[in-house]
Amino acid sequence: MKTVAVRNITRADAATAIGLGNAGVSTVHEAQGRIGLLKPYIRPVYPGARIGGTAVTVLAQPGDNWMIHVAIEMCQPGDILVVACTTDNTDGFFGDLLATSARARGVLGLVINGGTRDVADLKAMNFPVWSRAISSKGTVKNTPGAVNVPVVCAGQLVFPGDVIVADDDGVCVVARKQADNVLIKANERIANEDSKRGKLAAGELGIDLYNMRSALADAGFTYVDTLEDLGEFNGIDCKNRD
Amino acid sequence: MKTVAVRNITRADAATAIGLGNAGVSTVHEAQGRIGLLKPYIRPVYPGARIGGTAVTVLAQPGDNWMIHVAIEMCQPGDILVVACTTDNTDGFFGDLLATSARARGVLGLVINGGTRDVADLKAMNFPVWSRAISSKGTVKNTPGAVNVPVVCAGQLVFPGDVIVADDDGVCVVARKQADNVLIKANERIANEDSKRGKLAAGELGIDLYNMRSALADAGFTYVDTLEDLGEFNGIDCKNRD
Amino acid sequence: MKTVAVRNITRADAATAIGLGNAGVSTVHEAQGRIGLLKPYIRPVYPGARIGGTAVTVLAQPGDNWMIHVAIEMCQPGDILVVACTTDNTDGFFGDLLATSARARGVLGLVINGGTRDVADLKAMNFPVWSRAISSKGTVKNTPGAVNVPVVCAGQLVFPGDVIVADDDGVCVVARKQADNVLIKANERIANEDSKRGKLAAGELGIDLYNMRSALADAGFTYVDTLEDLGEFNGIDCKNRD
Amino acid sequence: MKTVAVRNITRADAATAIGLGNAGVSTVHEAQGRIGLLKPYIRPVYPGARIGGTAVTVLAQPGDNWMIHVAIEMCQPGDILVVACTTDNTDGFFGDLLATSARARGVLGLVINGGTRDVADLKAMNFPVWSRAISSKGTVKNTPGAVNVPVVCAGQLVFPGDVIVADDDGVCVVARKQADNVLIKANERIANEDSKRGKLAAGELGIDLYNMRSALADAGFTYVDTLEDLGEFNGIDCKNRD
Amino acid sequence: MKTVAVRNITRADAATAIGLGNAGVSTVHEAQGRIGLLKPYIRPVYPGARIGGTAVTVLAQPGDNWMIHVAIEMCQPGDILVVACTTDNTDGFFGDLLATSARARGVLGLVINGGTRDVADLKAMNFPVWSRAISSKGTVKNTPGAVNVPVVCAGQLVFPGDVIVADDDGVCVVARKQADNVLIKANERIANEDSKRGKLAAGELGIDLYNMRSALADAGFTYVDTLEDLGEFNGIDCKNRD
Amino acid sequence: MKTVAVRNITRADAATAIGLGNAGVSTVHEAQGRIGLLKPYIRPVYPGARIGGTAVTVLAQPGDNWMIHVAIEMCQPGDILVVACTTDNTDGFFGDLLATSARARGVLGLVINGGTRDVADLKAMNFPVWSRAISSKGTVKNTPGAVNVPVVCAGQLVFPGDVIVADDDGVCVVARKQADNVLIKANERIANEDSKRGKLAAGELGIDLYNMRSALADAGFTYVDTLEDLGEFNGIDCKNRD
Repeated sequence: MKTVAVRNITRADAATAIGLGNAGVSTVHEAQGRIGLLKPYIRPVYPGARIGGTAVTVLAQPGDNWMIHVAIEMCQPGDILVVACTTDNTDGFFGDLLATSARARGVLGLVINGGTRDVADLKAMNFPVWSRAISSKGTVKNTPGAVNVPVVCAGQLVFPGDVIVADDDGVCVVARKQADNVLIKANERIANEDSKRGKLAAGELGIDLYNMRSALADAGFTYVDTLEDLGEFNGIDCKNRD
Repeated sequence: MKTVAVRNITRADAATAIGLGNAGVSTVHEAQGRIGLLKPYIRPVYPGARIGGTAVTVLAQPGDNWMIHVAIEMCQPGDILVVACTTDNTDGFFGDLLATSARARGVLGLVINGGTRDVADLKAMNFPVWSRAISSKGTVKNTPGAVNVPVVCAGQLVFPGDVIVADDDGVCVVARKQADNVLIKANERIANEDSKRGKLAAGELGIDLYNMRSALADAGFTYVDTLEDLGEFNGIDCKNRD
Repeated sequence: MKTVAVRNITRADAATAIGLGNAGVSTVHEAQGRIGLLKPYIRPVYPGARIGGTAVTVLAQPGDNWMIHVAIEMCQPGDILVVACTTDNTDGFFGDLLATSARARGVLGLVINGGTRDVADLKAMNFPVWSRAISSKGTVKNTPGAVNVPVVCAGQLVFPGDVIVADDDGVCVVARKQADNVLIKANERIANEDSKRGKLAAGELGIDLYNMRSALADAGFTYVDTLEDLGEFNGIDCKNRD
Repeated sequence: MKTVAVRNITRADAATAIGLGNAGVSTVHEAQGRIGLLKPYIRPVYPGARIGGTAVTVLAQPGDNWMIHVAIEMCQPGDILVVACTTDNTDGFFGDLLATSARARGVLGLVINGGTRDVADLKAMNFPVWSRAISSKGTVKNTPGAVNVPVVCAGQLVFPGDVIVADDDGVCVVARKQADNVLIKANERIANEDSKRGKLAAGELGIDLYNMRSALADAGFTYVDTLEDLGEFNGIDCKNRD
Repeated sequence: MKTVAVRNITRADAATAIGLGNAGVSTVHEAQGRIGLLKPYIRPVYPGARIGGTAVTVLAQPGDNWMIHVAIEMCQPGDILVVACTTDNTDGFFGDLLATSARARGVLGLVINGGTRDVADLKAMNFPVWSRAISSKGTVKNTPGAVNVPVVCAGQLVFPGDVIVADDDGVCVVARKQADNVLIKANERIANEDSKRGKLAAGELGIDLYNMRSALADAGFTYVDTLEDLGEFNGIDCKNRD
Repeated sequence: MKTVAVRNITRADAATAIGLGNAGVSTVHEAQGRIGLLKPYIRPVYPGARIGGTAVTVLAQPGDNWMIHVAIEMCQPGDILVVACTTDNTDGFFGDLLATSARARGVLGLVINGGTRDVADLKAMNFPVWSRAISSKGTVKNTPGAVNVPVVCAGQLVFPGDVIVADDDGVCVVARKQADNVLIKANERIANEDSKRGKLAAGELGIDLYNMRSALADAGFTYVDTLEDLGEFNGIDCKNRD
């Protein structure tokens, strides 16, 4: 593996990244065709944050956070650190000192396929982190990895400069070149959902709003009046429970 | 598998369901003889909610939320949607639009052996969800399942019309015909615990309150004064740590 | 296995335990040389608590909380209950009644390699618990274990009287005889980190503050200007994404 | 919970159970409409066994195998022990002595949502076991459960007398009253698959054999000639890897 | 943490270790009072091995096998390497070259709370390994740990020189000073089980052999004749399934 | 997401793929700089197979194996099917009929981040499969995915035409353009290891062979004679156990 940092990366447009952050993970994931979602074991260390920014990527070795220190030098305001690891590891790669340093560079938050610590401090600082674990286990600075290279993080390929969106639903990546187009679609989706939301709140049924009744019938779906009519379901006797 | 919806179900008494909800999961679980508890991996997506209602059941296919749309038509005020899946799946079957629609029908909340999304919105709406995962991964509407049939959800058999109780401790099901009796026992238990709580708060020991001392002796349990008296425990030398 | 309780234990100094609690888990874990951390699956049942106290240990049988009742008699103000189990188990060993009793004895909180319940009540009481699960599943009082013996809890050896520190980052144990020394080192670490925090907040880079540049070069770490210079990384073509 | 054993149960036909065993789990699961499959974490302790028999059910307490001893008295030749547990537990509930006793009653094997031990002996005896874990951890005989009652085992409802099929693919339950019908369908499926197998082995494609081409087109599925034609897929640049 | 190797350790008697190995894990675990069992996620990489030997212990850093190389110098014929790790890690710490080296020193096998690789070679060499994972992921030699110190491995405290027993059921540790006594009890248990096995094979029931009937009655356990007599169990209607 | 199949792909050289297969996963993983290893939860469904071939890739929807049928048409002798899924899923996507069809096209085996079934048949056919689960749960053919596109499978990016190596240690991918070079390095590694193996078998120590003694001293690693000299380690008293 090459142990290297790339100094200069091309970032997605900053305003686009902010706009995607405002749209949120679930909307962005849908807007770009249901791709780019990191595995759901990546969770926020405290609830309520929502950010969109540009990725500075790190490939770390297990139990070793050296590369995060290297990466911070590469960061600009509006960036989000994205840390992958060469193997599954839950050690505490990141804490309040690194958060302080990252914030001084304008970093918006951290996504890490590993552990983090000092979470009470991170919450007090309002520096959001999405991680697979919370752990005080310290890390060393012995084995180089890489910075600003393409990485697979929690199942998704992330290039430096891609847009990262993170909120209470999880984390999504948008390829840099797709970002503007995805933002347009996300905003269309939001408008469309606002319209549907009003109808649903007024009591219109989804199966009517989405015209599902004939498709259900075509798929062989039927209705019966009572459990007694059904008799048996999946080997369970329905008749005399009700 | 039959792909069918049952239109009319017999529900447990609404007041009973509310009463069981007020009693809470742990009390209800005890009151009915320690049965009915869903696996503890089902967790609330935000803390602090407590509900009791009647089950409208869904058996969904993996990655497919079609049946939830069908089920909402079957819902009445006081119902709780209970979604099982034919296989383990963590996709985001449910979000804020479905919650809006469910609320318009008077649904109190959702229990799902799968994933949910839009959790910040759900919290803002105060629409509680208990799920095995949070995930933005969207679902399709391609393969029918069933609605208002008996399902096994997170290890428990649930019939439509059963009472569901859900709070920060998890989720419990009470069979419809047992519900009134369980509520009586739950209220007895609450009264009994209030009495014990006062004694314990005043410093009385549980081993005295519950008369455990002779049972301990009968079971061969003994006391020694110090670790040095014990010498060795489970192959660990106790003598000179203290 | 001996089924026994040890009545009298030698505790670490109370002020030391409080001081270590104030320092917090991550600092204490570092200060004692990165040892003593319980596995990260032990999590607080609600966020925001931070305690330091002396361990009263319990070795419980699966699905059986008898020994916790026995242990409470052994507790003094400033103690923390530490419950290990002879096998992995997630049942609800502990709830609000036991918390009431423990609080009456001055117990600060509970660490349990098992499940707990009544978590809304525990939060309302402000009685913190760190556990591997939340579950209403009740336990019996049929099979003796042991109290105030050395136990392995979530991967760490804990002797009665050791210091336990617990907060949002997890749980750490400090051997009784090391406690005073660890507190000194923890306070030194806090002072040292305060100094670093100021420099990092002012924009100094960690790779300069920690003199990492030559070590990086010695380890063969290099820099390139752009992804195009890199060409390929881990079999991924970098050239025309950016 | 009632702590009780049911002495007399109505069993599925013995020849039907044997026939279903010969058909195997995957075929039976399909033949009855894809229901009845236990969760895939239930695995054989050694490969190569395949059995079909009638269920004698056990509901055990965690870490307690008392009810298995009770159940053996209820067993007849051709039975399979099915052990559920009131909570998740991996202790070693079953070993070579119980297997010796079960074999003396004509029991064909064991399915347990828990742990087993003495697996080298079980293999030497050719007594097959499907379990969620292998563990030497011993169990007690202190807390009653139930025997020959309906249980939910690894996610499936099993009634005493139902047919259990188990092989290297896992475990499936067939409701007693459905068993004869499922066997007919299983045999039809086997015949049908034999016919297909010959065609596929001769090189006919499944998409032709199953007439999938028009359905693919209807679903919007398309073909391109090369990755360069595709350009980009899921944010990954396809153009110059090939 | 001290980074150190202890050159000379006191080993349990070699013949005792061999005797315990012959008795096997489940028997030894029972004979010493159900203690010393490593967590059941530690599994043999191939079936059929059974060994007993004396522990040379290693505390490794995640992703770093340097200490195993150090430990091999400390090994003598009849030893078993026991590798703990400062954090959960599944990398491939051990393969066929280390096995070749260990075998040259007379090492009987390896127990590791981590990953191993070259498992086809290990099987061909007949060098048994018990591990938590199989993984080709290579390790570095950068960060010291310790050798021949007390370690907690997969939940159990192991001192250098303790007896390790490993077979298809898992792994058990016996404290050095207890080993002779445990061997006596293990052999008594084997003799006792042989006697019981004959009776059970002849058809005597365990509930008679162990005199369980009165204890069952005392615990409130009852018998009914049929499921119809039972009526309902755990909220499941038993009446008309049979 | 584009739902599309790519008809023509450029494959790595067939002889190179075979050569890499002969070298095996652990050797190939090392030879290419420790990259390309799929997560270790991907395991062979039976032991003893070792293959190297060229990837035909599939991106499947959860519980839907339609795309595998599409992919078989694209296969040539020497190919290996690599199936990723848009979400975590353990259903049985592949069984003996698909294996028969794949074999008729010359496919060497299957790697799937999902479940497989008919494993006894697959073993009897000697058609090797590496999967995350074994499950009889059937799949549908309702929702298109993609074939011969770049996919992330079990954490690794795989392009169609890349080399896949799979054996008892797991699965590794080699980028098509790197394959020849990696094969050269793999063969060099094998020769080098043969040389080391002889020395180690003859009793030479790794710490001498690899010149580790001075590096250990530089890293602060020390030796003591006995546990009594050590005194205490990680809070554990070493003095009077030995």
